[in-house]
Amino acid sequence: MDLNTLASGLDTIWVVLSAAMILLMEGGFALLEAGFVRQKNAVSIIMKVFVDITFGALIFFFFGFALMYGKDAAGLIGTSGFMMGGDLTHINLTITHDTYWLFQCAFVIAVISIVSGAVAERINFHAYILFTIAMTGLIYPVAGHWIWAVGGWLGSLGMIDFAGSAVIHALGGFSALAAAIVIGPRIGKFSENGTANIVPPSNLPLASVGAFILWFGWFGFNSGSTLSATNGSIGHIAVTTMLSAASGGAACILFTMLRYRKADPPMVINGSLAGLVGITAGCAFVSDAAAILIGAVCGIAMVFATEFLESKRIDDPVGAFAVHGVSGSIGTLAVGLFAQPELAGKAGQGYSGLFYGGGVSLLGIQALGLITVIVWGFATTWIAFKLINRLVPVRVSRDEELVGLDVGIHGVPAYSQEHDFIELTQLTLDKR
Amino acid sequence: MDLNTLASGLDTIWVVLSAAMILLMEGGFALLEAGFVRQKNAVSIIMKVFVDITFGALIFFFFGFALMYGKDAAGLIGTSGFMMGGDLTHINLTITHDTYWLFQCAFVIAVISIVSGAVAERINFHAYILFTIAMTGLIYPVAGHWIWAVGGWLGSLGMIDFAGSAVIHALGGFSALAAAIVIGPRIGKFSENGTANIVPPSNLPLASVGAFILWFGWFGFNSGSTLSATNGSIGHIAVTTMLSAASGGAACILFTMLRYRKADPPMVINGSLAGLVGITAGCAFVSDAAAILIGAVCGIAMVFATEFLESKRIDDPVGAFAVHGVSGSIGTLAVGLFAQPELAGKAGQGYSGLFYGGGVSLLGIQALGLITVIVWGFATTWIAFKLINRLVPVRVSRDEELVGLDVGIHGVPAYSQEHDFIELTQLTLDKR
Amino acid sequence: MDLNTLASGLDTIWVVLSAAMILLMEGGFALLEAGFVRQKNAVSIIMKVFVDITFGALIFFFFGFALMYGKDAAGLIGTSGFMMGGDLTHINLTITHDTYWLFQCAFVIAVISIVSGAVAERINFHAYILFTIAMTGLIYPVAGHWIWAVGGWLGSLGMIDFAGSAVIHALGGFSALAAAIVIGPRIGKFSENGTANIVPPSNLPLASVGAFILWFGWFGFNSGSTLSATNGSIGHIAVTTMLSAASGGAACILFTMLRYRKADPPMVINGSLAGLVGITAGCAFVSDAAAILIGAVCGIAMVFATEFLESKRIDDPVGAFAVHGVSGSIGTLAVGLFAQPELAGKAGQGYSGLFYGGGVSLLGIQALGLITVIVWGFATTWIAFKLINRLVPVRVSRDEELVGLDVGIHGVPAYSQEHDFIELTQLTLDKR
Repeated sequence: MDLNTLASGLDTIWVVLSAAMILLMEGGFALLEAGFVRQKNAVSIIMKVFVDITFGALIFFFFGFALMYGKDAAGLIGTSGFMMGGDLTHINLTITHDTYWLFQCAFVIAVISIVSGAVAERINFHAYILFTIAMTGLIYPVAGHWIWAVGGWLGSLGMIDFAGSAVIHALGGFSALAAAIVIGPRIGKFSENGTANIVPPSNLPLASVGAFILWFGWFGFNSGSTLSATNGSIGHIAVTTMLSAASGGAACILFTMLRYRKADPPMVINGSLAGLVGITAGCAFVSDAAAILIGAVCGIAMVFATEFLESKRIDDPVGAFAVHGVSGSIGTLAVGLFAQPELAGKAGQGYSGLFYGGGVSLLGIQALGLITVIVWGFATTWIAFKLINRLVPVRVSRDEELVGLDVGIHGVPAYSQEHDFIELTQLTLDKR
Repeated sequence: MDLNTLASGLDTIWVVLSAAMILLMEGGFALLEAGFVRQKNAVSIIMKVFVDITFGALIFFFFGFALMYGKDAAGLIGTSGFMMGGDLTHINLTITHDTYWLFQCAFVIAVISIVSGAVAERINFHAYILFTIAMTGLIYPVAGHWIWAVGGWLGSLGMIDFAGSAVIHALGGFSALAAAIVIGPRIGKFSENGTANIVPPSNLPLASVGAFILWFGWFGFNSGSTLSATNGSIGHIAVTTMLSAASGGAACILFTMLRYRKADPPMVINGSLAGLVGITAGCAFVSDAAAILIGAVCGIAMVFATEFLESKRIDDPVGAFAVHGVSGSIGTLAVGLFAQPELAGKAGQGYSGLFYGGGVSLLGIQALGLITVIVWGFATTWIAFKLINRLVPVRVSRDEELVGLDVGIHGVPAYSQEHDFIELTQLTLDKR
Repeated sequence: MDLNTLASGLDTIWVVLSAAMILLMEGGFALLEAGFVRQKNAVSIIMKVFVDITFGALIFFFFGFALMYGKDAAGLIGTSGFMMGGDLTHINLTITHDTYWLFQCAFVIAVISIVSGAVAERINFHAYILFTIAMTGLIYPVAGHWIWAVGGWLGSLGMIDFAGSAVIHALGGFSALAAAIVIGPRIGKFSENGTANIVPPSNLPLASVGAFILWFGWFGFNSGSTLSATNGSIGHIAVTTMLSAASGGAACILFTMLRYRKADPPMVINGSLAGLVGITAGCAFVSDAAAILIGAVCGIAMVFATEFLESKRIDDPVGAFAVHGVSGSIGTLAVGLFAQPELAGKAGQGYSGLFYGGGVSLLGIQALGLITVIVWGFATTWIAFKLINRLVPVRVSRDEELVGLDVGIHGVPAYSQEHDFIELTQLTLDKR
């Protein structure tokens, strides 16, 4: 047993365990979304999460990883690594390329899962599969290449996005926004006079445990992004992640008590997640106090963003844009304000934010990168949905929507209190 | 890469992963409690868990950690480390103070979550927030200092509480008892003639998965308390934890089959948890056989304690006292009986229990520490609730309790089978 | 701090964390099964999982481990290690025997949990406890000894079953088949004319999150089976595990869309699990592409196996045989086809499959081992149930089955919407 073998083993289990935690977040997304939507669509949203994790992983294996992390061409795209083959020598890590792929695969699945919430309760299943292929095979890998790959143009400019407030959350959130706009609101969501109607979430306990699972996974998401267990920032990253999440949740408890005269459960759930999203870019580079501030701002901004979308008659059933798009953007910019060189140094970077003597240069780069990523995410999603709509309708039929996608599309309700077997010749005929 | 960097990285990921597992236990508490209470209060109990994890983390960051682990004053209280600043050089670990904070933060959140169950279905939300601040900022940190901090008076006497049967569970359990007594039983729980009435748990599958998540987290809780991956006791700790939990659950299966003529699901769930609580103090110091015995005793004691509380007309909806208070006490004393010097040695201590040649000295110290902690927990909680009651009523109104706290306080039911949107001008007015 | 201490610490936390992840799979089994069965039996199936984890762990501690991993006698059975005592020097690992026991204990609990699904909704609780003792104390340990123990006859022949497609899943699946046949179908499952009747799953969101938790645990199950963090195969194992699961799920999405004209949620859930089961034997020895193929084949075979069982009027409520028995068999044989020496070498073996120049020898050994294990599992389960039936009826009464096992056996429903307390003298009398 030599030191290098030991170090490599240590880094490997760290990344594998982190990846497993991120992949468990799919269970979190499934619960969160199934809990937030109406009961008649709870299975259908979970089936979309299964599409994310199954098709997403395969497409990223065949194409996405290569376009994202393959040998750089002009700072724009990767060109090797299809099916993990070809030259990947530019990826210089203590873990194997295999292991690295798994961690990145967990990320891409998170991105597409963000979008799944925004189109809940009305998207055609076939169209969703096609969009998943577009997102995991092209849209995300290209944006990811710009910021995270060796040679990517935004990363080369000095953009900092430690675990993906921009690459994952802002991209996913603005893609979700485009998707929600293109597909249109659910029947009955808005009245003729423009007021937003509501329906209580079908299962808040499930949604809550979804949030706790996501919170758990986020420690893998952020701390695991060091890709090495001997990176001195791991403890600090975990702490800022915790504090920002706590702050986002606490801010939403207090703020909704003021604003709505009641601590609003869905807002509290989403507020914690907003805090997690917001700290994702800067977790290694900002102080504990800054993390608390970032979390609180993201939590409150999420409430306003949710209200804003409703006022614009845009229907995002689970708040994907408000949580991921808005907090991801805030978090990306916050790095330009709060990055501290002595903290950043631990993770191997030396940039300073505006409040720590770095002037506006880092802030400018962060803003440029953010705008690039959200425009890319919004535009390509818009185009993808328009193209997909030529192949299959992106929206289910009115009848399917009214009866619910669970029975309408998947032939089975989410919950059944039936105690006895049913002799349904009709149903058997339908099925076989 | 040198050996010390590697060792420090290894310890860091071990503690971060353990902390994440303990924090996931909040999801477990949320499910367990939401499953045990009535449907009309399932969201409100989860909102309390969100208060625990959000306010708890922040208060512990600002105040609690400093009072608990700061520079000792007279063996009674810590005095440095507010916001992780000031002199913490007396904390001599291979992990950073940041990382250490995260692990301890996960613990304090568990303590307050124990209390949340005992006051379920009737506590005022504002009062709960204030009590959370008192518990995480003062009550627990002071008791914790006595036993766990460098210079704490009980720890200096030689009290052993490896992962917190006393500090966490007995303290939390007796605090829960005081809270349940002060706030009084739920409307309808006891008849005029004193008999206890029942209502079936609203969602036993959720409660069960809560227990499995808690069980999972407990491996982080106990094994992670080594704070170092090269501590030779880790495997043994995990094994005694497993055996005691299994024994507590199995004992409750058999015992309730005898006593009630049916394996009683809530008792089986709580029996496993009782086994986990009971082994927490001695997991590193007792043998496998002792762990099995401790688990069985705790499981059966939990059944009697539950019945005893009902006979005394004390209403503890989820059994917080029976599980945490009683088993925590048993576990703390059991160390004085079963600690084996050769096992204890592995974890760096050399005490022997009564059955292993140590006489009654360790048992005496354990008893002194236990009594101190439970009196402190009970008394300060009683006082805190009395003081809080001067600011805001600690109990919701009769109407809110009857309609349920979910709709009454938080404006939304836990479960909704509504399929269509509601145009409720009234509701909109209420909300904004 | 020396290198060996560090290596041993690293291996220890790796195995402990993996074991904890596998044990969390019990929560996954509980949810999956509770979600698939009818509401009136949701608690009873969870109580069986509690029997698995509590009785299973204790029996394996007292007997099972010794028979499985104790000093070999004639290649057939172990003879030392009862209560972890006696000579275990032949187990030569970098982790302690304690730690090794915990990992193996997590495995045995998984095996018995496979069977619990097949007998759901109709097995007598006492009979289930007795069968659990038989399975965890004898049936599984003996088969496991043959393949995994030092000196076991099948392992000595060269059979490869890295993490247990054969030992765990095929054995458990064929045991489940025997149990389902002996105990007979649920009342109403089959009509007089032989057609299968259906009842929708009671809670598909719970079943889905069960699957995601199982998926998460599988990374511990497969990667953790290295038992050492410096085993160079860990990353590769995690990747093949991921790809096979994704492929199994994706195949079922597409295949059920073709076959049933709808993506069938229970089939998609089970398809992912089939992919996981199928890769378990070969995860360290087959290529990424082979993993994708194995997953897809297992997913589709699961659909046919489910239909086949129904056509034979065998009632397996959660698909235990189709998922574990069939995919476990396919996975075991697939090693004989796809094992690659250069991959296998990483994990310390050098066998080649049929497609990689190894001829039919490995395939023959795999087939021999598989047939041995499934005949053993089927036959001993059959005999065990026949014997148990002499002591207690293996099946509940017709009345208990019709009213449901939750209320019939355990005296409490899984879900209750009751808001008020019940003054039930009758019920109190019943209970005490």
